Amino acid sequence: MSMPLTKQADAPIHSSAMQEIMRFVMSARADEAVLAQASRAVLDTLAVTIAGGVEPGARALKASLDPDPRPTAVPSFWTQAGYRSDDAALLLGMSSHMLDYDDVSMLTVCHPSAPVLSALLAAAPREGVSGAVLLEAFAIGTEVLIRLGQAMGFRHYALGFHATATLGAVGAAAACARLMRLDEARTRHALAIAASLSSGLRKNFGSMVKSLHVGIAAANGLKAARLAAAGVEGSAEPFEDEGFLSAFSGGETDRWPAGLVLGQPFAIVEPGFEQKRYPCCYMLHKMIEATLCLRHETGLDLASVKSMRVDMPAGGTKPLIHPFPRNGLNALFSAPYAVAASLADGRIDLKSFADAAVLRPDIQARLRDVVVVEAAGEAQTGSDLGSAPVTVTLTPRQGGTLSRTIIASPGSQQDPLTPPQLKAKWVDCLQRACPELDSQVTAALFDEGKNLASHANIEGWLMRLRDGVAQG
Amino acid sequence: MSMPLTKQADAPIHSSAMQEIMRFVMSARADEAVLAQASRAVLDTLAVTIAGGVEPGARALKASLDPDPRPTAVPSFWTQAGYRSDDAALLLGMSSHMLDYDDVSMLTVCHPSAPVLSALLAAAPREGVSGAVLLEAFAIGTEVLIRLGQAMGFRHYALGFHATATLGAVGAAAACARLMRLDEARTRHALAIAASLSSGLRKNFGSMVKSLHVGIAAANGLKAARLAAAGVEGSAEPFEDEGFLSAFSGGETDRWPAGLVLGQPFAIVEPGFEQKRYPCCYMLHKMIEATLCLRHETGLDLASVKSMRVDMPAGGTKPLIHPFPRNGLNALFSAPYAVAASLADGRIDLKSFADAAVLRPDIQARLRDVVVVEAAGEAQTGSDLGSAPVTVTLTPRQGGTLSRTIIASPGSQQDPLTPPQLKAKWVDCLQRACPELDSQVTAALFDEGKNLASHANIEGWLMRLRDGVAQG
Repeated sequence: MSMPLTKQADAPIHSSAMQEIMRFVMSARADEAVLAQASRAVLDTLAVTIAGGVEPGARALKASLDPDPRPTAVPSFWTQAGYRSDDAALLLGMSSHMLDYDDVSMLTVCHPSAPVLSALLAAAPREGVSGAVLLEAFAIGTEVLIRLGQAMGFRHYALGFHATATLGAVGAAAACARLMRLDEARTRHALAIAASLSSGLRKNFGSMVKSLHVGIAAANGLKAARLAAAGVEGSAEPFEDEGFLSAFSGGETDRWPAGLVLGQPFAIVEPGFEQKRYPCCYMLHKMIEATLCLRHETGLDLASVKSMRVDMPAGGTKPLIHPFPRNGLNALFSAPYAVAASLADGRIDLKSFADAAVLRPDIQARLRDVVVVEAAGEAQTGSDLGSAPVTVTLTPRQGGTLSRTIIASPGSQQDPLTPPQLKAKWVDCLQRACPELDSQVTAALFDEGKNLASHANIEGWLMRLRDGVAQG
Repeated sequence: MSMPLTKQADAPIHSSAMQEIMRFVMSARADEAVLAQASRAVLDTLAVTIAGGVEPGARALKASLDPDPRPTAVPSFWTQAGYRSDDAALLLGMSSHMLDYDDVSMLTVCHPSAPVLSALLAAAPREGVSGAVLLEAFAIGTEVLIRLGQAMGFRHYALGFHATATLGAVGAAAACARLMRLDEARTRHALAIAASLSSGLRKNFGSMVKSLHVGIAAANGLKAARLAAAGVEGSAEPFEDEGFLSAFSGGETDRWPAGLVLGQPFAIVEPGFEQKRYPCCYMLHKMIEATLCLRHETGLDLASVKSMRVDMPAGGTKPLIHPFPRNGLNALFSAPYAVAASLADGRIDLKSFADAAVLRPDIQARLRDVVVVEAAGEAQTGSDLGSAPVTVTLTPRQGGTLSRTIIASPGSQQDPLTPPQLKAKWVDCLQRACPELDSQVTAALFDEGKNLASHANIEGWLMRLRDGVAQG
């Protein structure tokens, strides 16, 4: 139908959402603090991307893609094959979210880094960019993603959309437009096209499609920027007046909120992103943290305790649907396993979620000794759940009880990954993709990556990283 | 966030929407009447696709695509280049809707044929299908598209989504799953993936992105089927329980309506699709029809009338925002031009919307002699607007008045394109893409296409069509 379609053609540009986003994408500058946080987030996301790329879902996707033999192809981390940039973004994006180990922003209930970095990594080889330029584009893209989500509010997620995916396409387009140095008109068109490519439903959570969403968002963000560069033109005001905000909030909002200003501060700096410390459901993080603290401080292990109890906030156990896990995928959502394995091993990492690790008889025998108690009351969500305390109480065989309460979300700015933890996660992830990889090479690649902001061209480091993973 | 994600993994399949769609996609049979209507729709859509492919937006898209030199590439209609199937679907889809000349279903306020046929044409060369198989898959895909829209109701469109695009991805996936003979599990995954790839905003109407949407829907429908075939797995119940229906209706509905049964009858048969008779806004169709009737019946032309008046229903002039058009794009939405050109030329076709035709001094001088009057009252929408009368009244220089009222929508089942009109539209469209094309070749290709249901393999005819257009 053509009916309601042409009024915009002559209408003045009065979209404050577009004005706000355009101003930011065209002129924002990332200061040292932003670059430092972006550098941390990029390293963390790269690590989980490389690890995710060897999972079955990512392998299925890879098998469906045609490698691109041309020199302009984007090289892969996992094979000697290269891919067209849209396929590369799809594959990187799906891999980045495959383990659900990438960072989180509780401001918008989304994973901000994965879609944006995946698009940039697929775009970057053709652009020949410096580390600072990449990090700045990354910070800009994640900021657009998060603030657009804040503009819409939680109704977006509640209706059934997967915020990481829907917002990710626009954030990735903003990042790519900046990286590709599109002019103002083309940046505007890129954002308008991305608004129309925004997709993803929560109903596909619990399937391979959840991580595919991130690939789609990355590929679509990059596609939007490339189509705009090629001369495809969209609306001047895609976000308001029955646009993106209305459609994706179920009509709850149709305007950019007056007080919401991009980059003041960047969300990556304040409140920062939550980086996952453990490769499992974020709702297990506080109980793992508490249990590991108790073990390290008291020397108690699984054999020396009689029983274990976890006290959770209302709503906190909703995703923890596998009290008696029979494989690694189950165990990602198992409170008893998280506590028992933490006590048994003194660590939680990717190896903790191998099927064989989960099926160990001495662990399986103790799962019923873990009691999980959820507080009464209305289920909490989002930031409230993030700031609610979790307590682990151990009853040693020798008597008495020992408790530990965790309030700050592990990986948040209140309890950030320490540099050694970030490095350990890097090593753990790279070894998952490539068990033969030399640990010194892995460590050197990390140290080099920490200084990404000072790289004159990121391609050298990326190439060494790819060579390391593909050959190791 | 992993929080609300895993409950589905173990939940029973109780989605009646999925059950309804699956039953239909796996087992529906198209009878003779359905095949006959599908054949008409395919020919009509192919014609406008071929014409749309030479427009600036489609050319910009084409310039951004990498041709695929491999023998498995999908050949193009417009050049000797072939494309990867996803790029082919994108280009066919954008071209199919570029002129806004493709068919309409007032049941869902959408263009049903364009996204579905574009996906099938991109998928078909690898599948080697018969005409009947193609038409059956086409009828199934358009039916899924329309009924899913009916399930959601008008709120979907009102919120800001572009129904042709959002529903198109799922309809195209259903069609491709059927064409590719995916098994039940993979068909289910294809539909789940497509639900998550569904996108498109009305705010991009009036720009090149409106037609790009159709390309995206076609490419995503095909991509969903291909990813499912490759082993990517989605949710068992993507449509209900905070799924597709909730998200895209702003929470207004979350269930498949009890009385809505796919294919009983197929919407393509009852009430049928509206095929555009004129290459311009559908709200101009009745006034053009009335004016041409008056001219043919009375012999009056533009020179012999003093003034012209159009009476429209409430809301009927909303898109007609260019009373004094200065180019062809303006004229697509100009009531005075539609009436004046109909009277001057005795026909409305693609040539009527060339810039030079619009700027003719004898037409421009008379635009102010056309008065358009909209009825008072609340603006009508959708089917109501479609069934409202439009009256054209001419005042000849020799005195008196002559009126004609049109009630049935031109191109609807009440006033269908006649076989000669369908053929004339075909010829007009093919000549637009290729002015040198021999008229006998064009006519022969049409006659051959009319019997599409009896083709053992559609590739021969498609190849002759491509060769004709590319070489003509």
